[in-house]
Amino acid sequence: MNTFSFSALLQKFQNLGLSLDLFKDKPRPNFDEVTHDLCSTLLQLRGEASSVAIAEEIIRHYRGGTLAEKQGFFRYLHDTLGADAGRVDQAIRNWQGTPSGQNLQALGAACEPPRIELLRTLNTAPGGTMALIDMRDDLLKMAGDDPVFAVIDEDLLHLFRAWFNRGFLELRRIDWQTPALILEKLIEYESVHEIQGWDDLRRRLESDRGCFGFFHPAIPDVPLIFVEAALTNGISDNVRALLQQEPPRNGHTPDKLPNTAVFYSINNCLQGLRGVSFGNFLIKHVIEHLAVEAPHITQYVTLSPIPGFMRWLKKEWPQLSQNGDGKGVLAPDAKEAVDALLRGELNADMIAASQPLQTTLPALCARYLVLAKSRDKPADPVARFHLGNGARLERINWMADASPNGIAQSAGLMVNYVYDRKTMARNHEAYEQQNEVAYSLAVRKLLPGPAVPMIKLAPAR
Amino acid sequence: MNTFSFSALLQKFQNLGLSLDLFKDKPRPNFDEVTHDLCSTLLQLRGEASSVAIAEEIIRHYRGGTLAEKQGFFRYLHDTLGADAGRVDQAIRNWQGTPSGQNLQALGAACEPPRIELLRTLNTAPGGTMALIDMRDDLLKMAGDDPVFAVIDEDLLHLFRAWFNRGFLELRRIDWQTPALILEKLIEYESVHEIQGWDDLRRRLESDRGCFGFFHPAIPDVPLIFVEAALTNGISDNVRALLQQEPPRNGHTPDKLPNTAVFYSINNCLQGLRGVSFGNFLIKHVIEHLAVEAPHITQYVTLSPIPGFMRWLKKEWPQLSQNGDGKGVLAPDAKEAVDALLRGELNADMIAASQPLQTTLPALCARYLVLAKSRDKPADPVARFHLGNGARLERINWMADASPNGIAQSAGLMVNYVYDRKTMARNHEAYEQQNEVAYSLAVRKLLPGPAVPMIKLAPAR
Amino acid sequence: MNTFSFSALLQKFQNLGLSLDLFKDKPRPNFDEVTHDLCSTLLQLRGEASSVAIAEEIIRHYRGGTLAEKQGFFRYLHDTLGADAGRVDQAIRNWQGTPSGQNLQALGAACEPPRIELLRTLNTAPGGTMALIDMRDDLLKMAGDDPVFAVIDEDLLHLFRAWFNRGFLELRRIDWQTPALILEKLIEYESVHEIQGWDDLRRRLESDRGCFGFFHPAIPDVPLIFVEAALTNGISDNVRALLQQEPPRNGHTPDKLPNTAVFYSINNCLQGLRGVSFGNFLIKHVIEHLAVEAPHITQYVTLSPIPGFMRWLKKEWPQLSQNGDGKGVLAPDAKEAVDALLRGELNADMIAASQPLQTTLPALCARYLVLAKSRDKPADPVARFHLGNGARLERINWMADASPNGIAQSAGLMVNYVYDRKTMARNHEAYEQQNEVAYSLAVRKLLPGPAVPMIKLAPAR
Amino acid sequence: MNTFSFSALLQKFQNLGLSLDLFKDKPRPNFDEVTHDLCSTLLQLRGEASSVAIAEEIIRHYRGGTLAEKQGFFRYLHDTLGADAGRVDQAIRNWQGTPSGQNLQALGAACEPPRIELLRTLNTAPGGTMALIDMRDDLLKMAGDDPVFAVIDEDLLHLFRAWFNRGFLELRRIDWQTPALILEKLIEYESVHEIQGWDDLRRRLESDRGCFGFFHPAIPDVPLIFVEAALTNGISDNVRALLQQEPPRNGHTPDKLPNTAVFYSINNCLQGLRGVSFGNFLIKHVIEHLAVEAPHITQYVTLSPIPGFMRWLKKEWPQLSQNGDGKGVLAPDAKEAVDALLRGELNADMIAASQPLQTTLPALCARYLVLAKSRDKPADPVARFHLGNGARLERINWMADASPNGIAQSAGLMVNYVYDRKTMARNHEAYEQQNEVAYSLAVRKLLPGPAVPMIKLAPAR
Repeated sequence: MNTFSFSALLQKFQNLGLSLDLFKDKPRPNFDEVTHDLCSTLLQLRGEASSVAIAEEIIRHYRGGTLAEKQGFFRYLHDTLGADAGRVDQAIRNWQGTPSGQNLQALGAACEPPRIELLRTLNTAPGGTMALIDMRDDLLKMAGDDPVFAVIDEDLLHLFRAWFNRGFLELRRIDWQTPALILEKLIEYESVHEIQGWDDLRRRLESDRGCFGFFHPAIPDVPLIFVEAALTNGISDNVRALLQQEPPRNGHTPDKLPNTAVFYSINNCLQGLRGVSFGNFLIKHVIEHLAVEAPHITQYVTLSPIPGFMRWLKKEWPQLSQNGDGKGVLAPDAKEAVDALLRGELNADMIAASQPLQTTLPALCARYLVLAKSRDKPADPVARFHLGNGARLERINWMADASPNGIAQSAGLMVNYVYDRKTMARNHEAYEQQNEVAYSLAVRKLLPGPAVPMIKLAPAR
Repeated sequence: MNTFSFSALLQKFQNLGLSLDLFKDKPRPNFDEVTHDLCSTLLQLRGEASSVAIAEEIIRHYRGGTLAEKQGFFRYLHDTLGADAGRVDQAIRNWQGTPSGQNLQALGAACEPPRIELLRTLNTAPGGTMALIDMRDDLLKMAGDDPVFAVIDEDLLHLFRAWFNRGFLELRRIDWQTPALILEKLIEYESVHEIQGWDDLRRRLESDRGCFGFFHPAIPDVPLIFVEAALTNGISDNVRALLQQEPPRNGHTPDKLPNTAVFYSINNCLQGLRGVSFGNFLIKHVIEHLAVEAPHITQYVTLSPIPGFMRWLKKEWPQLSQNGDGKGVLAPDAKEAVDALLRGELNADMIAASQPLQTTLPALCARYLVLAKSRDKPADPVARFHLGNGARLERINWMADASPNGIAQSAGLMVNYVYDRKTMARNHEAYEQQNEVAYSLAVRKLLPGPAVPMIKLAPAR
Repeated sequence: MNTFSFSALLQKFQNLGLSLDLFKDKPRPNFDEVTHDLCSTLLQLRGEASSVAIAEEIIRHYRGGTLAEKQGFFRYLHDTLGADAGRVDQAIRNWQGTPSGQNLQALGAACEPPRIELLRTLNTAPGGTMALIDMRDDLLKMAGDDPVFAVIDEDLLHLFRAWFNRGFLELRRIDWQTPALILEKLIEYESVHEIQGWDDLRRRLESDRGCFGFFHPAIPDVPLIFVEAALTNGISDNVRALLQQEPPRNGHTPDKLPNTAVFYSINNCLQGLRGVSFGNFLIKHVIEHLAVEAPHITQYVTLSPIPGFMRWLKKEWPQLSQNGDGKGVLAPDAKEAVDALLRGELNADMIAASQPLQTTLPALCARYLVLAKSRDKPADPVARFHLGNGARLERINWMADASPNGIAQSAGLMVNYVYDRKTMARNHEAYEQQNEVAYSLAVRKLLPGPAVPMIKLAPAR
Repeated sequence: MNTFSFSALLQKFQNLGLSLDLFKDKPRPNFDEVTHDLCSTLLQLRGEASSVAIAEEIIRHYRGGTLAEKQGFFRYLHDTLGADAGRVDQAIRNWQGTPSGQNLQALGAACEPPRIELLRTLNTAPGGTMALIDMRDDLLKMAGDDPVFAVIDEDLLHLFRAWFNRGFLELRRIDWQTPALILEKLIEYESVHEIQGWDDLRRRLESDRGCFGFFHPAIPDVPLIFVEAALTNGISDNVRALLQQEPPRNGHTPDKLPNTAVFYSINNCLQGLRGVSFGNFLIKHVIEHLAVEAPHITQYVTLSPIPGFMRWLKKEWPQLSQNGDGKGVLAPDAKEAVDALLRGELNADMIAASQPLQTTLPALCARYLVLAKSRDKPADPVARFHLGNGARLERINWMADASPNGIAQSAGLMVNYVYDRKTMARNHEAYEQQNEVAYSLAVRKLLPGPAVPMIKLAPAR
């Protein structure tokens, strides 16, 4: 604890006309003492306007703490600012005596600990919302199994879900007219296809591209999540070609207006908001937006990585390669090639040149995406995201990402998911309720046997 | 239930690609059936993007309902979308077995009924926030004692307290540059000193006045609360004089810059937000704002009504008039005058001309404001508001509001409360914790005896 | 001249660090002396930054002048700040010696008087542009024939034409979201169909109406010109019906989107900009705007007054009524009715009930609009405006404006002009170059004989 | 001339409903033919709204031209679209007959060639203002002596002076919140101290710096001119130290608020606006702005290069070194050192280490800045700019710019000019009228003898 800031704190209290009695026996109090005193002061003020200044002080104080001090702060929130067990037990007795709606509501209220009120008040400080998000970011980095941290984490997540309700988010187009303050966030947070400085950024914001983000009014300078799209003719099957495409000279001329929006990257910016989902809304809002602004766009697809494919293949290959599948998708000479691939002996060029791999890998990948499951849903996290949104698995693209990372995670394969406005809601329902995965006829042909039912195309109901 | 809108609803479901199975056996379903089907559909969609459209549909549907149908909707929320008692009981057992923070949190979560999730999703519809506020407005107008409505009301209030966290509100100056859409709200909601059309409104927004409101990003066109101030030289003691003052010709010239901001009216706009308090923050934010923007303003006062004075006097007078107070504040000829006043025999002019009343009424009013209590706090609601904010009761003004309403509620008296930035926080603390009321020496002189301690002025601590 | 402001002026000069020598022998100088001194100071400063303060001072000084003093100011500009005749004569000799482009340019420059530079510098003061517009407004009100004033007027007009170049104007939609400061200008300047207060104004800005204005960046709070439109189904033939139409309840539902924009009023706001034309651009920009924003609007028409019809008829009727026209458009019993009309014996109801007038007046009006000329262009000023813009005279409407003014100027008739995007430019060319007037077949039928060629519809050229 | 764009042009004419007769005998017209036809069409349209489209076409056409074609265009403007000599001569006769203000005005009007109207109409096209500025940029690059180009250049300059009147410019602060589109212009146009990419740019926009620009509403994305300042404590004497200073961590804390604004770079962005001066206004507006926004700033200085010093020294040294000056400023061993310097034998370190140079060079530089003249004004262009604005030559800084360029142009010297709000206007007057140069006592001491009168400090006049 920095004594200078303590004297500044005393000064601030005096300016606010607040009593300094708290500190009178503590000439150089430690971090914990200041924390506890400030927090209890704040809770006693019960919403009085000067509480904003105390909240600001707590945030500043927290930010200056060491890791251990921050952990101490969370333990304090958990241990000292928990709910009153006696009041909870009384509420339980009331509910058990008369199981009315009102008594249940009262029980819920009794379970709400005072730290929730504290966190709500911290939000009133200037920059308070961002400070709380940063606080949860800290928390998520701490040792994962400690139930104390898990409880505080859940409290924050619960608050964030209320505050970041979709009804409060704003969709904004991000382009070269956007303040630099926001644009530098794109460079910082793009992790799917890294942005190589400001020139690369500008390229991604030209007229044949589109970048859209969700913003919250309390954090106007940071997109919560953003998606990058390229406007093309036809569905792109190679991400390098997509990214390196020359910009249009004088805007699109009418005879070659793009007909396709390819979403090639979607990124969350704030780790501290993990678990508050925006992604599905964002893509769909962008589609709604483009449907009005750019009616010449008639199809919406992704060009997506398959992050878990090679990991899965490594694990499953021994058994797959023994059984074959009786359907001819595993070419005779495929085993040797896949073995070499899994041993890490093939570089991008060698993979690209291998006919057996070109035949076999897409078929294996189709199995992975459609048949490999984790708790009844697709094992691949990107597949889970898009299929869960109601998209359809459309096409598996050979050598679509020959970067080292692309080779490592998916042997260069990438996949297109199609967002079809007519079938999205139905696909979503089928996915949620029957765990059904929507895929195209082309993918169907890569799968073994007739045993896996393809999702029905929408008949007129 | 209007069959036309039902067919439109079917059409909408089809456009969204949603199944119509829900409705297949109900050619002309009634309001309740549609409500229940829409709500259960919405909850099943679990946040999928097309849930926005369903939410919009539920709101439209609700709005078209009769009073009885709306009440039915609230009963449905209460009875059908309540928490799962079995899950609650299991959570109680867990907590009783192991009274950990985590188990308590889980118990709280178990108490949260699905209708909360429904209400959160309704908020995602365009205009959803306003629709929920209107819904609570409806609810508050319904028969007050029904615990079913009270439970839903509490749910909404709980959501609103989270959403309308002070950290999300924006202070905006309202002036003649403000969109008419917002200005007409001032005319609609000003209830302290009614605005007589657009000319009166413009007068209230000129350079020697100030109007400020809190806005929430989701309701950008309605101030949640607004306060009106007049910038004057010296503390105003008459509201009519204040309102009728001529506007400055060419702005204030430097030799007579105003030194006082007189807050003469503060109004909430949205009944549906009753119980979510903004008023104390608003006044203090305006003071902070003026301290920077208009440093020549050195004092901040109100010119406030005393809504409960005459009612209190009527009740207490028999005893007060018998006892006297031994201090000479009750003038010898006062009894007769007050009796006549209470019998309603005196009009404004007669009151104004009465020397005994001019001596006696302020003293009685000082007693009312300082000594009359309701649950240990001042009985007068306006006094409760300002003193609770940390203001000081400064001065009681004779014949300050000679309007019929002013005569009826307070015999023409009004009062100034002073917001002193140096003592506000301390006054607030003393008020909250020891029920102390801050008043000036002038008021002190109107009170009987030395028994009532005046709040200490801030010594240098 | 107010001595107080003179001392303030001295103070200002001192604050600017400027010499007070100018004023040293003039303890109480008169208006003219101050004017001249300030103006010569300003010209000597040659663009130095403190010239802004002097410019502001001149404007303030001018504004405080009497009519006679203002006239004196204009005479001073003319007499004292005129071009240097010697320099002009030298430039003439140069040009006559060598008639080169450069010498001609130099001659033009020599003709530019210093007062132009003065006026340009006045424009740099805060609010300077508006002050110069007001100055010209004053000038236009002064006795018209004085060539001195005409010269200054021409100088200002020349500056305004440069400054208010169409490239600098901004088209803005005006609606209920617009600041009240701008909206009150609509009430003030609408002179075609007066706005009856703020409720009427709001009605004119609802979703089935549109109001658009041109704004200049230097005068952001005053529309230079604005046009009001109603969005209807079909071409409106009655202005009262149009204005009194009920607003839509919940916006237009898709099955009855309006297909027509009826421009029913266009108003200039600033008299001081008379002669700088915006009107034709405004209407066409609004049409371009609606074509994108409201593609369901397929026709654009006016509902226009015919201000000169009755005046013309009064003058021409003796001859017209004698000759007849041999075409049967003048009904046998028309003469008596028209005579009564012209004698002022008929009120609105009597006109409305007269079959002969209903047959005859439209035919006479068609003659007036198409055949009556003033310097080869249509005699009617409104016709001149719209036809000059390339619109087509479409339809003459019986009893379209039964207001006293409508009866007085055009016996209740109004007319629709159609703006057809395909033919506007050609109509404009034909109008400008061959004085041709575009009209519809319906109007053609009202005209006598085949002698008047109708403008050809556009064949593929 | 590209035939494709010709067919597009024909299409456009047809869409506008304009006659194609112009082109009927020219299946593949050349650049000149199209130019002439478009321009004459435009002038005939006399302001009709479709003229905007033609203006756009002319600009597009011009932009596609070769250098020779562009020159041809300017010749066409000069030769064909010049004023009517007959009309000029008639106006001359009128003026000579009656030398009235009106006849002079008419003569000026007769001298205005139609190409001015053409240029005004080009300004109405989207982006027209920028296109005309680019056109003048082209013109300025063409062979300088051709009077034809000089005439067109003068026409454009005359228009720009009217359009870019100071009253229409907007001062804007440029910071990291500014759109990237504008920020990249700073990188492009900063030529005094080059910006090394986006990180350097961000540094220049932090809270201890300030960047301000003038913008015109018709070119919102390009600052016409911008100035960069550093906020420091005390007057900076070294530009590298200034630029490399660490940014403040948490904003300035109150005990060390900066008291000085150092303007270290001012740049015009648009060559095409050469001759339209903004610089003096910009600096003074920024000073006015800071005086309000940052009252802790009490002095405003530049840290400026001395671009002509070494060039002047080379020329004057032979004579100066012979005469000495009898004042002791030329140290005994100075001659040798200056000789070596002028022979280019000294690098930055050697100069820095030379005591004789440190004594002699500032004295020589003072002579250069104060005594060296060009047409009665200071010979140094930067001195001319700041002294002409009313600034005072304050201090000559040894080794203030050790960059190769700094060594080459001024042997590492830089100079501070002080903008003192109290004396600026007087300095400006004295400079303009008596060619007086304001300098400090410190500079006075560097000058020879008492012969050069220092400008008087302002006594109370």
